[in-house]
Amino acid sequence: MAQKPSIPKGTRDFGQTEMAERNYIFDTIRSVFRTYGYQQIETPAMENLSTLLGKYGDEGDKLLFRILNSGDAFTGVGMEDFRTGDDEYNSKALSLKVCEKGLRYDLTVPFARYVVQHQNEISFPFKRFQIQPVWRADRPQKGRYREFYQCDVDVIGSRSQINELELVEIVDRVFSLLDVNVLIKINNRKVLTGLAEICGFPDRVVDITVAIDKLDKIGLDNVKAEMKEKGLSDEAVAVIEPVLLLSGSTAEKIDRMRELMSGKSASGIVSEVGLKGIDELEELFGFIAAAGVSQAVEIDLSLARGLNYYTGAIFEVKALDFPIGSICGGGRYDNLTGIFGLPDMSGVGISFGADRIYDVLKGLDKFPAELTSSTRVLFANMGAAEQLYVLPVAKSLRERGVSCEVYGDAAKLKKQFEFADRKHIPFLSINGGDEVSQGIVNIKNLVSGEQKTFSKDDIDGMVTFLS
Amino acid sequence: MAQKPSIPKGTRDFGQTEMAERNYIFDTIRSVFRTYGYQQIETPAMENLSTLLGKYGDEGDKLLFRILNSGDAFTGVGMEDFRTGDDEYNSKALSLKVCEKGLRYDLTVPFARYVVQHQNEISFPFKRFQIQPVWRADRPQKGRYREFYQCDVDVIGSRSQINELELVEIVDRVFSLLDVNVLIKINNRKVLTGLAEICGFPDRVVDITVAIDKLDKIGLDNVKAEMKEKGLSDEAVAVIEPVLLLSGSTAEKIDRMRELMSGKSASGIVSEVGLKGIDELEELFGFIAAAGVSQAVEIDLSLARGLNYYTGAIFEVKALDFPIGSICGGGRYDNLTGIFGLPDMSGVGISFGADRIYDVLKGLDKFPAELTSSTRVLFANMGAAEQLYVLPVAKSLRERGVSCEVYGDAAKLKKQFEFADRKHIPFLSINGGDEVSQGIVNIKNLVSGEQKTFSKDDIDGMVTFLS
Repeated sequence: MAQKPSIPKGTRDFGQTEMAERNYIFDTIRSVFRTYGYQQIETPAMENLSTLLGKYGDEGDKLLFRILNSGDAFTGVGMEDFRTGDDEYNSKALSLKVCEKGLRYDLTVPFARYVVQHQNEISFPFKRFQIQPVWRADRPQKGRYREFYQCDVDVIGSRSQINELELVEIVDRVFSLLDVNVLIKINNRKVLTGLAEICGFPDRVVDITVAIDKLDKIGLDNVKAEMKEKGLSDEAVAVIEPVLLLSGSTAEKIDRMRELMSGKSASGIVSEVGLKGIDELEELFGFIAAAGVSQAVEIDLSLARGLNYYTGAIFEVKALDFPIGSICGGGRYDNLTGIFGLPDMSGVGISFGADRIYDVLKGLDKFPAELTSSTRVLFANMGAAEQLYVLPVAKSLRERGVSCEVYGDAAKLKKQFEFADRKHIPFLSINGGDEVSQGIVNIKNLVSGEQKTFSKDDIDGMVTFLS
Repeated sequence: MAQKPSIPKGTRDFGQTEMAERNYIFDTIRSVFRTYGYQQIETPAMENLSTLLGKYGDEGDKLLFRILNSGDAFTGVGMEDFRTGDDEYNSKALSLKVCEKGLRYDLTVPFARYVVQHQNEISFPFKRFQIQPVWRADRPQKGRYREFYQCDVDVIGSRSQINELELVEIVDRVFSLLDVNVLIKINNRKVLTGLAEICGFPDRVVDITVAIDKLDKIGLDNVKAEMKEKGLSDEAVAVIEPVLLLSGSTAEKIDRMRELMSGKSASGIVSEVGLKGIDELEELFGFIAAAGVSQAVEIDLSLARGLNYYTGAIFEVKALDFPIGSICGGGRYDNLTGIFGLPDMSGVGISFGADRIYDVLKGLDKFPAELTSSTRVLFANMGAAEQLYVLPVAKSLRERGVSCEVYGDAAKLKKQFEFADRKHIPFLSINGGDEVSQGIVNIKNLVSGEQKTFSKDDIDGMVTFLS
């Protein structure tokens, strides 16, 4: 036999069980998005390289999958252009010449492109969600794929923190429906900027936040060492340290931070932007208290998340009962569409990590048992006349929404039983000549052993027994 | 302002209205598939080129989108290999060297690859459906895209024509649910082979079927002329002509065809394979009569459809009240997985043409009106205290499945009204200081003008009014 075919490394097939489980996650998320007025869009897998290049940094550019311009792309390229002997020059020139398209790397840049391109058709505030695969030419490893789904929800064109609240509510509701306990961590980019200001290094906000973002992983001492390595003074670190040690209720943390931003830190510096960030956190937590959420929500002043474009609230969600990285993250941005020429559109969004959420549900055994069986009843094949007899019964049950299979091929009953067993089909209907002549249908519950007989027209009775 | 960004030609953005409409089609199809025990799988967008090449003919190979091996793929290619001066040689060599992956061209080859790769995990008969985009580097034109969804349903590992029946029932049910009248046309590849045999040109089955497949478009005389051009004798055409002119009931057509295949045509030749095809058609129409379908179903002996791999039943579905090409098509194949080393797996499948079905529903105005509005009620923003008041009300309604929006930004009521209007939100809730102090919620039906007042805890009452 020929060698078995395979798929590119870092990609996956999803079989029926995994698909049912993944659809359960996506359907749950989607249904919650909809109750908040978010509507779905889709963008093409391929974007122009000019849309993608330069948006993810040099590293990101290297991870873009590029697509040859047409099926037989090198025809007509004119190879003589590439015979100068300078291979690196040739490589880049050829790459740009033969590739104008790339596979999308995330859903954020296509969303920004979409908003700018369709700005005249869109009613702002624009609430959209998008669930589609993205592709990255990353080194494949455990839990990291070259094709994976992202699930993004964003609202753009509104500065109100009611939107931040709604995203928190959405996270709260989704994980309550999925029966997973989470901690929703919230910070504000302006507070981080304020922190850099009051410690006297206002231009070092990135270094500071990159360091304190590692607090969970490397501990306080290492964070302090890293900040000093980056050139912060002992005095600056002494201003930052108490912030990282802050404890108490949300109100207490907010009060303490407001004091520090008001000039009551060791440096005595006042940060207006820091105070604005504190006001925003206070407003958001006020909304959260008014609405009432069931999952845990807390301020985490070490939360930074990438930072490149966040300007206000920052979110991160952790599963409480399963060890895994963050399962959702997001924040507010003020200039996402500026890269495409539409400035001053403030928005806020959050992304659900489908693969990690899948791992959490799998690890905690939270997938509903009924997902794995799609078929309720198998009609055994007892002969040609018997098949003709059960066909309209099966059709009626299907029209009532009951999933049925009619065993097609002539096979021993044992084989048909095995088929039902392998497919986890809970009911079997065996009807021979006697049942046909009497106009009845036998159905057996293979789990409980209970068997019932129905008139062939008693579809209602069968539906009840099968449900 | 910078030039507006755009997307590659032949690709599309789907906005919220189109997505709602497309999801309506896919959800309908999916729900019917499930009642027949079909389960969903997904395969990666990228397949190895070795999986794809040679499966769609030379033309198909040219239409494959090829992907550079990594983000910065030309690095390390070694340009000196491509400096011989023979451009065509260089192009092909470079193309193969730097591209090992391509975007899937259809769902059939990935399905065959999936079945062979996972044969030890699959319970046969294996009933799967798959709804995913495919990519073709075709010249974009009206109604032809470079990225489009296919929606395929197949069962493999069973020779029973119960499967053919179920596909007919699925088509019947889907279009009944979508409220579209269709004609389901059925033929059998063995009958076409038999036709070639009884006319004395058994090796010309492709030429004959390619010609008669055009009967609808070019008419009988041109079909006859084409067959003669291809080298068929006048006598051969005289055998085929009465078949194309066959009319009457299904039973009459079957009887007449059986006579012709039994040696009662002008040639006197008997075709065993033709007779087998007639038996299969008779069995399938017997199943259809027993099950009972509501849409029109007929034998069409001129139906050929590509033919490359069909070996039994052939299907095609036409919309009766809207002028467009076929909206579904499929058939039985006996050796789809043979290309990957797994012979003798018979299967049958059908593909739903999502874009054309969309055009039919749009053209016939068959999309349900409620699809275009996702939000039921907008809570107007009357001030900070009022917002805090309505937040828990909105949250409770959402938990009951009612889609709500809370207007976030401070804006004049006129602007909020306009927002509701543009988004087709049918209910508006305006609550000021009086409502807050009385603990009540006002909701107005913007369509009928009816207004009702509820206690803020009467979520049941609001759900009823809003539904």
